[in-house]
Amino acid sequence: MKPNIPVTDKKRIVIIGAGFAGLEIAQRLSKKDFQVVLIDRNNYHQFQPLFYQVAMAGLEPSSISFPLRKIFQSCKNVHIRVTDVHRILPDGKTIETGLGAITFDELVIATGADTNYYGMKEIEERAIPMKSVGEALALRNRILQNFEDAVSAETALEREALMNVVVVGGGPTGVELSGTLAEMKRFILPKDYPDLNFDAMHIYLVEGGGEVLDAMSDEASAKAREYLDQLGVTVVANQQVNGFDGQRVTTKDGLKLPTKNLVWAAGIRACPIGGFSEEKLGRGGRLKVNAFNQVEGYETVYALGDVAIMSGDEKYPNGHPQLAQAAIQQAKQLAKNIIRKQKGEAYEPFQYRDLGTMATVGRNLAVVDLTFWKFQGFFAWLVWMFVHLMSIVGVKNRLMVFINWVWNYITYDQSLRLIIKPKPLPAGISETENQVDLEKVQ
Amino acid sequence: MKPNIPVTDKKRIVIIGAGFAGLEIAQRLSKKDFQVVLIDRNNYHQFQPLFYQVAMAGLEPSSISFPLRKIFQSCKNVHIRVTDVHRILPDGKTIETGLGAITFDELVIATGADTNYYGMKEIEERAIPMKSVGEALALRNRILQNFEDAVSAETALEREALMNVVVVGGGPTGVELSGTLAEMKRFILPKDYPDLNFDAMHIYLVEGGGEVLDAMSDEASAKAREYLDQLGVTVVANQQVNGFDGQRVTTKDGLKLPTKNLVWAAGIRACPIGGFSEEKLGRGGRLKVNAFNQVEGYETVYALGDVAIMSGDEKYPNGHPQLAQAAIQQAKQLAKNIIRKQKGEAYEPFQYRDLGTMATVGRNLAVVDLTFWKFQGFFAWLVWMFVHLMSIVGVKNRLMVFINWVWNYITYDQSLRLIIKPKPLPAGISETENQVDLEKVQ
Repeated sequence: MKPNIPVTDKKRIVIIGAGFAGLEIAQRLSKKDFQVVLIDRNNYHQFQPLFYQVAMAGLEPSSISFPLRKIFQSCKNVHIRVTDVHRILPDGKTIETGLGAITFDELVIATGADTNYYGMKEIEERAIPMKSVGEALALRNRILQNFEDAVSAETALEREALMNVVVVGGGPTGVELSGTLAEMKRFILPKDYPDLNFDAMHIYLVEGGGEVLDAMSDEASAKAREYLDQLGVTVVANQQVNGFDGQRVTTKDGLKLPTKNLVWAAGIRACPIGGFSEEKLGRGGRLKVNAFNQVEGYETVYALGDVAIMSGDEKYPNGHPQLAQAAIQQAKQLAKNIIRKQKGEAYEPFQYRDLGTMATVGRNLAVVDLTFWKFQGFFAWLVWMFVHLMSIVGVKNRLMVFINWVWNYITYDQSLRLIIKPKPLPAGISETENQVDLEKVQ
Repeated sequence: MKPNIPVTDKKRIVIIGAGFAGLEIAQRLSKKDFQVVLIDRNNYHQFQPLFYQVAMAGLEPSSISFPLRKIFQSCKNVHIRVTDVHRILPDGKTIETGLGAITFDELVIATGADTNYYGMKEIEERAIPMKSVGEALALRNRILQNFEDAVSAETALEREALMNVVVVGGGPTGVELSGTLAEMKRFILPKDYPDLNFDAMHIYLVEGGGEVLDAMSDEASAKAREYLDQLGVTVVANQQVNGFDGQRVTTKDGLKLPTKNLVWAAGIRACPIGGFSEEKLGRGGRLKVNAFNQVEGYETVYALGDVAIMSGDEKYPNGHPQLAQAAIQQAKQLAKNIIRKQKGEAYEPFQYRDLGTMATVGRNLAVVDLTFWKFQGFFAWLVWMFVHLMSIVGVKNRLMVFINWVWNYITYDQSLRLIIKPKPLPAGISETENQVDLEKVQ
């Protein structure tokens, strides 16, 4: 295989990652006089804030994913390549990918962040993370399968472990997941599994700190906690999970929670990219960048969003929060700067505008923090839905999400409770063998 | 694991398979005074006639699948078990399943049919079948991935093999698939892949006989052939495929078609179930049944639909056609008979009513054969859509399919072009290991 990117007299801008930051800058630069190469592992953009609804059978993956090639159908100067990036050679202005080497004039690294297990191998091997739509689907399949297994369990202990769910991490994902699970336990699961006793099912939300949603206001944290209690989630605060043998989750303080389902939403780590020396990396593995998003020491290599840590913003000494809004704002500013550079103008430094944060806990229950106004409850929930609906790429996806939400709201149902897996590809011409074949040809 | 089915004083009717026949009879018996045990490998019912639209990225699997537990939510006398059936011991009134042995008073076998490769191992290993929603999804992923690979191909030959598709079997599935592919080639793919030359892409429909849709009227066959020609499908008639090395499909007459995509829709074979002697099996591995759907020699073991071959119907000496309508009609009659038996009344023999057949080739193009009226074209296409829409289980699924159809029709788009796979379950607690653990316990 080879990248097959045509050589033109346009400046080539290579963008790695089609998350919020990568997609935003690709769209902005695609309308200008550049050759844009957009590289992602998947052929689609994923809308992370709704992964939990995919995991909870409320939405289809396709409703919150959007094919990259469709977005750039009318842009002849954009070249999409679905592959992995192995290593960056910033001095050689080249990246090494699964398709071979690709050279660049300017490189934008927007690889985002992945789950952080803080070195705990035992948990990494057995927990289910929530950082891709494929992982969300795996969680859905796992939980549904475990309920099927619970029906056929031999002992009460076995049954309890199959039904219990432990969610680790009291951030938005953890809160949203455990809240939705509690609602499923109340409204749906007892109808689907009349043979099971749902008093035996426990949903634990384990948080290392003292409160949930600790990045939000005290008001929001307290209210979210109240909502979770109300829904029947057992919030376990000030406990650090340190082990999971597949049957039992343990904490540092010796707590033991019987479960076969451990969802890990307790931390993220910038996605590692080979090719940079240790000193370029800051806290959480993020690439150190200046106010123009340039990676320290390089003129034409930039990093954006979750994978970048910007120095110089006094209000954010540890870098900007790893949220969609920071990623998108940086992408917008960098697009402007790359266009300014083309015109011979000077770069403008990035300035972060905190637009507020929000999280939902369940039906009619959400918390919203804006700079000058904090509110919770039904109106917050409406605002949460509106903002998320409007942020989804594609009119049809928006329509599908809307219909699903209305449907699920009215029927108290999450209707996509199907354990569907694509059949593995036939052995003879699996993707791997395709690659091997081609390597032989090379 | 154990089946955990409560022992009651009701007559226990075990149904294997939740396809058209199994679901129909389970629904009818669920309202009567029986204990119904419904066993399927999946936790959902699949609507086979639209698999090809899932494969062609026009519909989501969830729109044509319906969770079994949801269908029977209000039926306390129905027990669903998601597992495989290994063997039937008809004399012992027991079946052996992945969950252990389950006894029955009456047994209904409705396991349907699977792909028939006629003993050609090479093809079985490499071709993509179309007999489950998981297989349809695998075909979608494969074709999309192959287009991505074509972008990065090294040689024109390699590129052509990745883009070409060979569909074997001129029945409804083969016709519908190749027709839709031809439309995608015309309306969608060139926009998604501006770098590829679509003149190099060929869609072959290979049929062993002389015409496509040979189970339908000559009028329908001829018109379908005309439509396929019009759409740009290369129909290869009177050729029998006998080899596929992953790069090239060969036929008995020495034809060679370069492709990496072989879709096998050339035949079906009744799903094998252990426990019956060879003499109980008829043509295509189907269980021989009498006019009451009783398996030869057994009073309380029945077979329905694709897996059954009924003797005694003069118009159908080789058994009824393996279609949804035959399966559903048999299920209805058997439900009646089981209820009659309960009341001490005599069985009524099954009588097949041919309601007609239909197939669609593309936008506005379909063929319909009714007993006294055969018609083709736009009106046939509307009828096809209406009949299929109304046959789908669940109001929401119907709504979703309808929206997708309208959307795709207006935009000339199949919008679900995403290669999404659930991430494999973590090694530590995979399903297999779950099972191993439990076996150790036993």
